[in-house]
Amino acid sequence: MSVTAPLGFRAAGVAAGIKPGGARDLALVVNDGPSRAAAGVFTANRVKAAPVLWSQQVLAGGRLRAVVLNSGGANACTGTEGFQDTHATAEKVAAALEDSAGEVAVCSTGLIGERLPMDALLSGVETAAGQLSRDGGLAAADAIRTTDTVSKISFKRAAGYMVGGMAKGAGMLAPALATMLCVITTDADLTSEELDAVLRRATSRTFDRLDTDGCMSTNDTVLLLASGAAGVKPDLAEFEQKVHEVCADLARQLLVDAEGASKAIAIEVVGAASEADAVTVGRAVARSNLLKCAVHGEDPNWGRVLAAVGTTDAVFEPDRLNVAINGIWICRGGAVGDDRSKVDMRPRDVTITVDLSAGPHTATVHTTDLTADYVHENSAYSS
Amino acid sequence: MSVTAPLGFRAAGVAAGIKPGGARDLALVVNDGPSRAAAGVFTANRVKAAPVLWSQQVLAGGRLRAVVLNSGGANACTGTEGFQDTHATAEKVAAALEDSAGEVAVCSTGLIGERLPMDALLSGVETAAGQLSRDGGLAAADAIRTTDTVSKISFKRAAGYMVGGMAKGAGMLAPALATMLCVITTDADLTSEELDAVLRRATSRTFDRLDTDGCMSTNDTVLLLASGAAGVKPDLAEFEQKVHEVCADLARQLLVDAEGASKAIAIEVVGAASEADAVTVGRAVARSNLLKCAVHGEDPNWGRVLAAVGTTDAVFEPDRLNVAINGIWICRGGAVGDDRSKVDMRPRDVTITVDLSAGPHTATVHTTDLTADYVHENSAYSS
Repeated sequence: MSVTAPLGFRAAGVAAGIKPGGARDLALVVNDGPSRAAAGVFTANRVKAAPVLWSQQVLAGGRLRAVVLNSGGANACTGTEGFQDTHATAEKVAAALEDSAGEVAVCSTGLIGERLPMDALLSGVETAAGQLSRDGGLAAADAIRTTDTVSKISFKRAAGYMVGGMAKGAGMLAPALATMLCVITTDADLTSEELDAVLRRATSRTFDRLDTDGCMSTNDTVLLLASGAAGVKPDLAEFEQKVHEVCADLARQLLVDAEGASKAIAIEVVGAASEADAVTVGRAVARSNLLKCAVHGEDPNWGRVLAAVGTTDAVFEPDRLNVAINGIWICRGGAVGDDRSKVDMRPRDVTITVDLSAGPHTATVHTTDLTADYVHENSAYSS
Repeated sequence: MSVTAPLGFRAAGVAAGIKPGGARDLALVVNDGPSRAAAGVFTANRVKAAPVLWSQQVLAGGRLRAVVLNSGGANACTGTEGFQDTHATAEKVAAALEDSAGEVAVCSTGLIGERLPMDALLSGVETAAGQLSRDGGLAAADAIRTTDTVSKISFKRAAGYMVGGMAKGAGMLAPALATMLCVITTDADLTSEELDAVLRRATSRTFDRLDTDGCMSTNDTVLLLASGAAGVKPDLAEFEQKVHEVCADLARQLLVDAEGASKAIAIEVVGAASEADAVTVGRAVARSNLLKCAVHGEDPNWGRVLAAVGTTDAVFEPDRLNVAINGIWICRGGAVGDDRSKVDMRPRDVTITVDLSAGPHTATVHTTDLTADYVHENSAYSS
């Protein structure tokens, strides 16, 4: 499973001593080829962590031999010293693999604004390099967790090849990559240009449509590595479908594990004049703290849905808006619709359907409810 | 005090039976002239409540004889029947005053999506009209409360005239009028054009810079009425200063009473290339749930400030950002600055200063922390 399901990949996850308490905190994923084609997408936040700046440069070459990831520290807002730390980490991986640092991506996650403990980290890289194995995918996925309560892994089989992935992310989930680290691997044979196009489309419709708290991270990174070890040139449409499935599966796992959440809410926008309108409306609704509180209280408060829709510039007429919650159309034509007592809000999954009555386009944005546990977790925990 | 401090105004606040429990829920403010000049600003939400649609039409004429306000129901998303209810309310006020409904503004606040109990409301209008008095301002301010724990009133004396005001608002406070109802009165003599210009500038720098939960209401209304009863043509700059002071005072009262809040946070943006940039950055920071949780936990988490700044398109370089919390510059040049242990987060008032190092402009946006009490209040209470 995870990133080592496809042929050509080895991984390891070790406790380097970056996190207090001895939990795993350093992961290494290595592509043994024969191909090293790779692509990446990164946070849209203009305040980018050092590892993001480094990995963007590396990915410009379209090739990756390895990815090193640490939890326990984001190495964001750490100045030129922080960038040098990332560089040193890549060099250490390169030395262990007798390869070039220019093909080593670095990902970090954890508290912003603190330097990483480099002695511990570099010796962890050495340990991880010594433990690389074909079944190291689970340990690697475990090592990148921060407030995640479970490891997130996924795996899909296709015609003669496989796609595997791991991700971390539990808070600060918002558009432009949903605050996360994710590594996806395949043993199919593709060029970096093909991987780039597929990855951008897949992430734009999965991770980019997750918005649990409207907060965008400084460290988001999604990488796609192809070893070509299966010797298969895949059908591109099928490959894109598999990558999409892995991304969607991991995105769902992030959503379900979101900090303090008790409900998984799908905001399904239909009848939009464009897909962009549908996404805009979905995000506005997903970011309404008042609505998220109402869902937590199992109150089918469609007024708060309309109040959020009204803040957008999407094409719609207020008196043609319809809203259903869990299938009951409690708002029709911008006013009261079916009996709200018919809405069953008890299931963990809540679907809010917004019909803009303005066209044929649709999009779904996923979010969670707002709970006292979220407040507690993010008041007590520095991240 | 309140709206009846200036000469020429009478008011009343009564229990009409719109709210369960017998609390005051209907206010009437009457301008006895000699002037009836008036201006209004309304929510930017495209889903507007019936009373907003009505009052916008009325204000096109630039004159107001009276304002009738109810709590206990927003009359939003109630279709054409809801608009007819608003119309009937204005007609009832007009009949009681033997005047024209075309000069009666209507304001409603409370739950969205339910029709108002019109029998109770109309008989309440009659009662209120019978109780109008020169000292009815406090009862009127009390009658417009929803989840507000206190009445919000303000009053400033100027050269030969006065400015008074009342407001309600405790949740759903966001830009574009901070989800509120507000009536401001003066006995100075001004044209409706003068009032309009003054009111727009004053609200844009006070109520519009309040953002407690990013949620914009369907009912926001701020009205400014001038009776001319003091017989004074005021100096316009002084008058604008007084109106600004009343608005700022009421805005501060809304902030302090915001649902579930334990901290009042000022996001002071300096060094901006434009005032618009400063406001954009201030709002982005004010809307970060993660930062609001951190402040609640008294954690000077400047990383969450930078992560919010990075989501904007304001002019800045990440490595020239400085952040102070309560006067301690804990982030300098986009990286660690002074010792975070020096920051005292215990006071109720927390000031976060963001220096963009990009120009001479500034703006301050006010918000609150995010607390379990906010979640509780908005889960348990339908509004």
